[in-house]
Amino acid sequence: MAFLPASDVLPYGDVEQAAGAIAGVARRTPRLESTLLNEQLGCRLRIKAEPLQVTGSFKFRGAYNSIAAIPDEHRAAGVVAYSSGNHAQGVAAAAHLAGIPAAILMPEDAPATKIELTRAWGAEVITFNRYTDNREEMGRDLQAKRGATLIKPYDAVLTMAGQGTLAKEALEDCARDDWQVDAFLCPCGGGGLTAGCATAVEALSSRTQVFPVEPNGFDDTTRSLSAGTLLENDPAARSICDSLLAPTPGDLTFAVNRERTTTGLVVSDDEAMAAMAAAFKYLKLVVEPGGAVALAAVLTGKLPVAGRNLLVVCSGGNTDAGVFAQAIGRAAAQGELT
Amino acid sequence: MAFLPASDVLPYGDVEQAAGAIAGVARRTPRLESTLLNEQLGCRLRIKAEPLQVTGSFKFRGAYNSIAAIPDEHRAAGVVAYSSGNHAQGVAAAAHLAGIPAAILMPEDAPATKIELTRAWGAEVITFNRYTDNREEMGRDLQAKRGATLIKPYDAVLTMAGQGTLAKEALEDCARDDWQVDAFLCPCGGGGLTAGCATAVEALSSRTQVFPVEPNGFDDTTRSLSAGTLLENDPAARSICDSLLAPTPGDLTFAVNRERTTTGLVVSDDEAMAAMAAAFKYLKLVVEPGGAVALAAVLTGKLPVAGRNLLVVCSGGNTDAGVFAQAIGRAAAQGELT
Repeated sequence: MAFLPASDVLPYGDVEQAAGAIAGVARRTPRLESTLLNEQLGCRLRIKAEPLQVTGSFKFRGAYNSIAAIPDEHRAAGVVAYSSGNHAQGVAAAAHLAGIPAAILMPEDAPATKIELTRAWGAEVITFNRYTDNREEMGRDLQAKRGATLIKPYDAVLTMAGQGTLAKEALEDCARDDWQVDAFLCPCGGGGLTAGCATAVEALSSRTQVFPVEPNGFDDTTRSLSAGTLLENDPAARSICDSLLAPTPGDLTFAVNRERTTTGLVVSDDEAMAAMAAAFKYLKLVVEPGGAVALAAVLTGKLPVAGRNLLVVCSGGNTDAGVFAQAIGRAAAQGELT
Repeated sequence: MAFLPASDVLPYGDVEQAAGAIAGVARRTPRLESTLLNEQLGCRLRIKAEPLQVTGSFKFRGAYNSIAAIPDEHRAAGVVAYSSGNHAQGVAAAAHLAGIPAAILMPEDAPATKIELTRAWGAEVITFNRYTDNREEMGRDLQAKRGATLIKPYDAVLTMAGQGTLAKEALEDCARDDWQVDAFLCPCGGGGLTAGCATAVEALSSRTQVFPVEPNGFDDTTRSLSAGTLLENDPAARSICDSLLAPTPGDLTFAVNRERTTTGLVVSDDEAMAAMAAAFKYLKLVVEPGGAVALAAVLTGKLPVAGRNLLVVCSGGNTDAGVFAQAIGRAAAQGELT
């Protein structure tokens, strides 16, 4: 299988352009740091806190960038998207702020919080079965019927470019503080966040290693990067990381990521839950399971950390109360929290 | 009872000086906003997110400002403090960063997280009974024995001035965005945060009303402001807001607050817990019960909010997993969270 060169798929200029498009609408999210956590780990961690983004995840960046680019004559027909939840909210909010209608296809087992908040932004929500329905096909049908613009969750240039603004911001902030980034870690589902961010890293901090992090059973990007070709996940796989369950890397995201990332890392659901508890305790940040996998990789030593400066993305915070209570309750029972 | 004039107790210049002393050590915490929450309430809320401060609460500001002012010849003897937990961590962290020893008196029923994190900063923790022991006396004894400097939790100029930097930052940020603040609300225990912030508000935004917010049973400031004299809480009172349980306003804090605040507001423990759940859902921020009372006052309509711009302090996020799980679990059961 031949892949397009990364520089053709996603030049850094697209990320710069996206930064202009979302400026003043998306938030320049803060980077958080815990002295206690740093001392325990023997490294310096900076957390890019995307739960504090509009809609509680980075997905607003790519969604708003995509919607901002819709030509005037197509805006009235609105947008369509399919999503496990964070992209849904991102598109719903971006459409709301742009004043155009949105119809969102969501898996029926998505966290209730995500479905509710998507509706709260005024979007029409249509549910599907994650394991038996073909969401791409349903999206295309809906798109054709309404003349709406499909906003893809990851495998699209505008989406990837929007997500890349996260790393651009974070690296600019680090540069301002003279803080050399040895490694950049981010959660990886379909690979859009990774692709955008890896592009910004290559342009702004080429010495920095880039690690996409995935949950067990959904390590398609990690295995595909090793194999040099697109591999799929076992359809029987399940994970609590509901935002990272894409079946396979995107054609475009993989073309970028195969050139611009170092290697993939994989964590267990339990490790993701423990990272949620650590974020609760040390950062006072609500992080969802999928949003916590990059932090989990650091906390569990999936890469060498001693003496290094690590920039870690916590990508979202849209989790049900029950899941969050379980994560912090389990850590408390194990004496990790008190 | 005669009180000193507020301008003699705490001139705004002291807050400006504190801002210089803590710059680069304390965090300039972000202000968070939720479009969905704003639309529901029909107002505009900006949340000053102090759980993201070093040690997870605003107390680090006053503690660091106080420790920075200790003369060189007294630094080696270290510092002593008494605190329900947040001031303890603030002093422990500030002492750690200043390289001097700290001994902290903490109530034996303080949240275990707070005791653990205070120890994690290298402080010696000595526990006392909140209802039977006299913490001031124990603090003075310890201070006399060691020659250490006592860092008071609220009734001291350096402490108040440090806490006031919170409002200075927030108001400067609002001014930069041309965002007029109609009302400023902050949690109130002994009144140090209120006094510092009210001083900054008077100097920077004199049209803004200032509301200290207290939990039921610990509304000493609210009642004292009405009466024009210092009143105490019923020693039998209990509240889940462990950070706001001071028995009476301080002499100095009250002298400032009687001139510079509008009126006190009071919320129930249940309302504070519901506000914690709202912060979880809409802000992705971990807020402790006492840290959530100002947000609770807004959410429950304790003051008119329609069409107004409200600057609300969430003052800390140091809560045990069990309490947090209870807050979000209860809201979920009531259909407020899903």
